[in-house]
Amino acid sequence: MELLIRKALDGDPRSIARLISIVESDSPYAEKIMKAIYPRSGKAHFIGITGSPGAGKSTLVDKIIRELKLQGKSVGVVAVDPSSPFTGGAILGDRLRMQSHALDPDVFIRSMGSRGSLGGLSHATYEAALILDACGKDVVLIETVGVGQSEVDIVKIADTVALVLVPGMGDDIQIMKAGIMEIADVFVVNKADRDGADKMAREVNVMLDLLGERAWRPPVYKTVAEKGEGVAEAVAAFSDHQKYLQKTEEGRKRKWQRLEREVEEILRREISRIVERSWNETKSVDLLNGLAERRIDPYTVAGDLLDKVFGPEA
Amino acid sequence: MELLIRKALDGDPRSIARLISIVESDSPYAEKIMKAIYPRSGKAHFIGITGSPGAGKSTLVDKIIRELKLQGKSVGVVAVDPSSPFTGGAILGDRLRMQSHALDPDVFIRSMGSRGSLGGLSHATYEAALILDACGKDVVLIETVGVGQSEVDIVKIADTVALVLVPGMGDDIQIMKAGIMEIADVFVVNKADRDGADKMAREVNVMLDLLGERAWRPPVYKTVAEKGEGVAEAVAAFSDHQKYLQKTEEGRKRKWQRLEREVEEILRREISRIVERSWNETKSVDLLNGLAERRIDPYTVAGDLLDKVFGPEA
Repeated sequence: MELLIRKALDGDPRSIARLISIVESDSPYAEKIMKAIYPRSGKAHFIGITGSPGAGKSTLVDKIIRELKLQGKSVGVVAVDPSSPFTGGAILGDRLRMQSHALDPDVFIRSMGSRGSLGGLSHATYEAALILDACGKDVVLIETVGVGQSEVDIVKIADTVALVLVPGMGDDIQIMKAGIMEIADVFVVNKADRDGADKMAREVNVMLDLLGERAWRPPVYKTVAEKGEGVAEAVAAFSDHQKYLQKTEEGRKRKWQRLEREVEEILRREISRIVERSWNETKSVDLLNGLAERRIDPYTVAGDLLDKVFGPEA
Repeated sequence: MELLIRKALDGDPRSIARLISIVESDSPYAEKIMKAIYPRSGKAHFIGITGSPGAGKSTLVDKIIRELKLQGKSVGVVAVDPSSPFTGGAILGDRLRMQSHALDPDVFIRSMGSRGSLGGLSHATYEAALILDACGKDVVLIETVGVGQSEVDIVKIADTVALVLVPGMGDDIQIMKAGIMEIADVFVVNKADRDGADKMAREVNVMLDLLGERAWRPPVYKTVAEKGEGVAEAVAAFSDHQKYLQKTEEGRKRKWQRLEREVEEILRREISRIVERSWNETKSVDLLNGLAERRIDPYTVAGDLLDKVFGPEA
């Protein structure tokens, strides 16, 4: 294990992949790995790429990688795929459109299933990003599945969130509805050679006006990712946002919030494990029949269980 | 409080509304209310109505209410609206299209925000349904916001899940991707006067074939909710599915799973409370700086905290 960690920290792709797999599989070694990794993390720029399915996120990520490489940066990608809540497996598998970088040792691409929490980002996603960070990647791109929860969760992980929109998909209403506007640091109107791109960019700006003045006004870029158009400008904006965070109170706050969430997430996982064990020991046909027949209620069952685990004073 | 609960159980709409508000606001009285309500619940048929935004769910719900009323049934509706993760408020507010029933004492309609868990169904949604059940509604319709998590969560709450599709919205791919197919007990192709309705119904049947044989083969209905066409047939199918559940092992299993989830959900909520409290007591500027500067890692911080709560043997 020490050797594996050392090789990963030296940048060996196969060792990095192995570490991520171990952490993802929730193995007892996961904590050991994360503890060893952690002191070396905290340097990379985490960029979240989110937006509706079909917005062209994977193609855009492909071109962002190319641009970052031109700047001499090493890049890690965590692409979250929708997984069936029933099978647990990732449906899309490795992203074909990113395969052009498959043989490049400076680019590490990893697909992860969203596992159970449909659309949500599992803690393993964040841990994979931390591993890539510790193993020397300058930038970690996190591409979400782009439905519901993951679009909001990304703000908990990424330093900079790019929201990818497409003209004519009715995205504007979707955004308003889901409260996604507030989480974007950079807007990218992709497939901007389609009709309505200018209109969409204008509408986003109007919505941003409605949100009121903020120290960082999210810029709106138009790209045609297929052709690489506008990508360099968007990447420059990501970098501007990073600089903005580094020198402002907002950046410090965001970093602290993320650290707090990390601790809370680990706590929740551990406590859940303890309670789940106790619940599995407690539940019985009798108890479930009691609930079904309304002889007992779930609040009393849960209360008794917690008393058992924590003592009655909790 | 006792008086309020008694009046609600007698069917008084204002008291029911008040109870739901208290439970939704996460007040300390919530548990007391749910404990009192619980023994009277377990009789209503919970029907989930899910599908993409724009599928015409609200209009369909309106017509389903009408049909159920013709059958002499009392109806409760919980409509989940998308809420901003930042303000916490519901964006759409009360559903205008259901207002035709606003003055009907046998129909109770309640909008709830999806609160933080974007697109997901909050536990309060389920508790509101239980309250309506205990207060004498024969059927409780739960209309989801129709993005991501809520479409899958509905299966945890509802006895019968109706998935509403619309021709020409590219829904077929969306469904496949998100693993939604598996959760539907009845398919409704709405706006069936549009082109492509027959094709869509056929495609759904093909996909159902791919899922393999099951004891309950979800039927596919075409409706034009605006005109009320096909609604009676769909409602009859909901009722058939209820009867199927009542007399099969699958029905018993589903009920037990729901009861287990109820207990687990309450446990989860309590655990979050415990985590938050103990973390708030521990966290300090020093500790957060230590994390930011990588002098300590979050796994060690969480481990120390757990030792404090449970003792070192946990």
